[in-house]
Amino acid sequence: MFSDKIIADLKSASFIRAMFEQGNRLRQIYGDENVYDFSIGNPEIEPPEEVINAIREIASSREYGTHRYMSNAGYLFVRKAIAGRLSQAYGMEVPAENICMTCGAAAGLNVVFKSILNPGEEAIMFAPYFAEYKFYIGNAGGVPAIVETDENFQIDAAAFRAAIKPGTKAVLINSPNNPTGVIYKDEILEKMAGIIKEKEKEYGTGIIVVSDEPYNEIVYEADRLPVVFRIFENAIVVNSYSKSLALPGERIGYVAVSPKLKQNGLLMEAIVFNNRTLGFVNAPAIVQRIVAKAIDAAVDPGIYRERRDILYNHLTSLGFQCQKPEGAFYLFVKSPVENEMDFVETALRNNVLVVPGRGFGRAGYFRIAFCVGLDTIKGSLKAFEKIAAEYFN
Amino acid sequence: MFSDKIIADLKSASFIRAMFEQGNRLRQIYGDENVYDFSIGNPEIEPPEEVINAIREIASSREYGTHRYMSNAGYLFVRKAIAGRLSQAYGMEVPAENICMTCGAAAGLNVVFKSILNPGEEAIMFAPYFAEYKFYIGNAGGVPAIVETDENFQIDAAAFRAAIKPGTKAVLINSPNNPTGVIYKDEILEKMAGIIKEKEKEYGTGIIVVSDEPYNEIVYEADRLPVVFRIFENAIVVNSYSKSLALPGERIGYVAVSPKLKQNGLLMEAIVFNNRTLGFVNAPAIVQRIVAKAIDAAVDPGIYRERRDILYNHLTSLGFQCQKPEGAFYLFVKSPVENEMDFVETALRNNVLVVPGRGFGRAGYFRIAFCVGLDTIKGSLKAFEKIAAEYFN
Repeated sequence: MFSDKIIADLKSASFIRAMFEQGNRLRQIYGDENVYDFSIGNPEIEPPEEVINAIREIASSREYGTHRYMSNAGYLFVRKAIAGRLSQAYGMEVPAENICMTCGAAAGLNVVFKSILNPGEEAIMFAPYFAEYKFYIGNAGGVPAIVETDENFQIDAAAFRAAIKPGTKAVLINSPNNPTGVIYKDEILEKMAGIIKEKEKEYGTGIIVVSDEPYNEIVYEADRLPVVFRIFENAIVVNSYSKSLALPGERIGYVAVSPKLKQNGLLMEAIVFNNRTLGFVNAPAIVQRIVAKAIDAAVDPGIYRERRDILYNHLTSLGFQCQKPEGAFYLFVKSPVENEMDFVETALRNNVLVVPGRGFGRAGYFRIAFCVGLDTIKGSLKAFEKIAAEYFN
Repeated sequence: MFSDKIIADLKSASFIRAMFEQGNRLRQIYGDENVYDFSIGNPEIEPPEEVINAIREIASSREYGTHRYMSNAGYLFVRKAIAGRLSQAYGMEVPAENICMTCGAAAGLNVVFKSILNPGEEAIMFAPYFAEYKFYIGNAGGVPAIVETDENFQIDAAAFRAAIKPGTKAVLINSPNNPTGVIYKDEILEKMAGIIKEKEKEYGTGIIVVSDEPYNEIVYEADRLPVVFRIFENAIVVNSYSKSLALPGERIGYVAVSPKLKQNGLLMEAIVFNNRTLGFVNAPAIVQRIVAKAIDAAVDPGIYRERRDILYNHLTSLGFQCQKPEGAFYLFVKSPVENEMDFVETALRNNVLVVPGRGFGRAGYFRIAFCVGLDTIKGSLKAFEKIAAEYFN
């Protein structure tokens, strides 16, 4: 009696759900402190002080109309604050009119794909990938075209070139990357820009680069990230404050469309229209106000760097193979056995929850989300030793 | 370079946008106090005191994890609070497991239609209707089947019966109604339930009644509203706190699935899955907490009753024909000229903004949203006199 497609999707998604249920079951048996749950990217840290102060200010100011509808694109004063920051970071003017506030990056991506994809058109995405991307593209009637990255999880220019077809409408990139922690280099992005231009000319099409950047404030070594608005002609940035302000439950983010993108004004109209009609209507008013008041705040990446270093050093010393993440808060580790499902089972037996790589389109690996408390990190070290002992001698 | 469908939709939607722009233009020329904008259902009143206190409490309690992800269905304690209220109001047990918190009713309806409709399946809706419904059904690949109501805007049983086809999957009702203010009577809903059973048997199909009830707390005469969970076998209630707590900008509402609905557990899984993958992820954490703290609060319908009475009495005394709204905060008035676009133009010349009936699928009428300040209501009376003078003698 329901949607056949959704019921089928439910079945394919049931594996990860089973994982979460396992976590709850283990916690009930062994207690919270004896279960090392690295399964979800749900930051354990609290938001910066500026966020708490912002909520207090909103409550006490009682400004008239605080909770009313505003423009579907969001408050102009919030969009201006973000535009100001982006203009400075990008070294080019980003007008407030090119920003639409969204209920997080997940909302932003759905709105963007619905705005640009015609049924059957392809959006290229790179494996390993954040699994939800496939749904976002599919919701808009698009088709995800998966391109494998190289052994360092960097984009392979030749594979990228080969994947572009006449029906390619979008290229989705995510850097710092979930699940690998990789940051794409300027050089590779510039090479991609050249390939896109070449292919657009060959096919007489237009290709839009959609850059999902929720981890842009969680960067460990680099002093700046590549600016996609400068590198690509037709670019859209999607962002979220879930990670940078540790507000994942509040659903706040934005879409920024490059002023260089052809007919960007028309695209903004389509984005705002879809923000409305897909049912978001507007990003939550109070959370928009919080973000504007805390616009210069961000979580300290040092908190995550410490966790990364402890886990990365421990795991590699035990014999695990893993690239050192340059950003975000995930380790994507090679499974010591070919079938990583076996490894995930072994980890589970030791009360350690990790996500199998096939959930991200790359079997033979597993993901650790290290945005958990330091106690969990430290408590897990012994468990990882026991797990390692089953595989390495 | 964008989605052809969305660009086409934009064109068809540009008329209402032009209306809003007219309002802004008029306000700039004549000043806020000389423009009578009845175009949007954006409550002018402030939320109840309980809401303001809730925000203050959240800010000062600083509970650990307040802004983190929770289950995609929302906090269990919030769902339990709502389930308790519904169980009492409906006189039957509604389990918390059958409730999913959503980013308002617009989100809830998108999530519900995506969960139940297969491509090409029909959802019956009644004219005049809230225009966004067509987009919500279309987003899920469904087809809106419009059924006209009778001269009192009540559902016509014969027309309803004739509209049900083998491909009919859903029936969308909205009571108290936007734009007419009508409340559907128990008798007509019970008649509909009988027709649905008969047609389900005839076609061997299942039909789900989706009841959009954001105005359920804004009721003028009735002491209780019909309970769709008791009347229909397969029913879903979608609700929002936009009107009942005057929080339209905050995007908070819920979907409740009847425990009598066949396989309601599976449907809840589909709804929670779609809440996640359509990009809502979860209803905003802080707003869920606000709603739970203010669960027994509601705006005073007396505020709207006063506005209704002033406008209704004035307009009918001037010669306008209009049914007296039993709920919600809209008047749906017969245009004194056949082409209501001409009337809307005349109103505009007098700084009065109303929405043409064709925006709701019923030409020859116009809608007044009277959720504005009492000053606006009173200030508009003279303007309506001048407008009336152009049509009635």
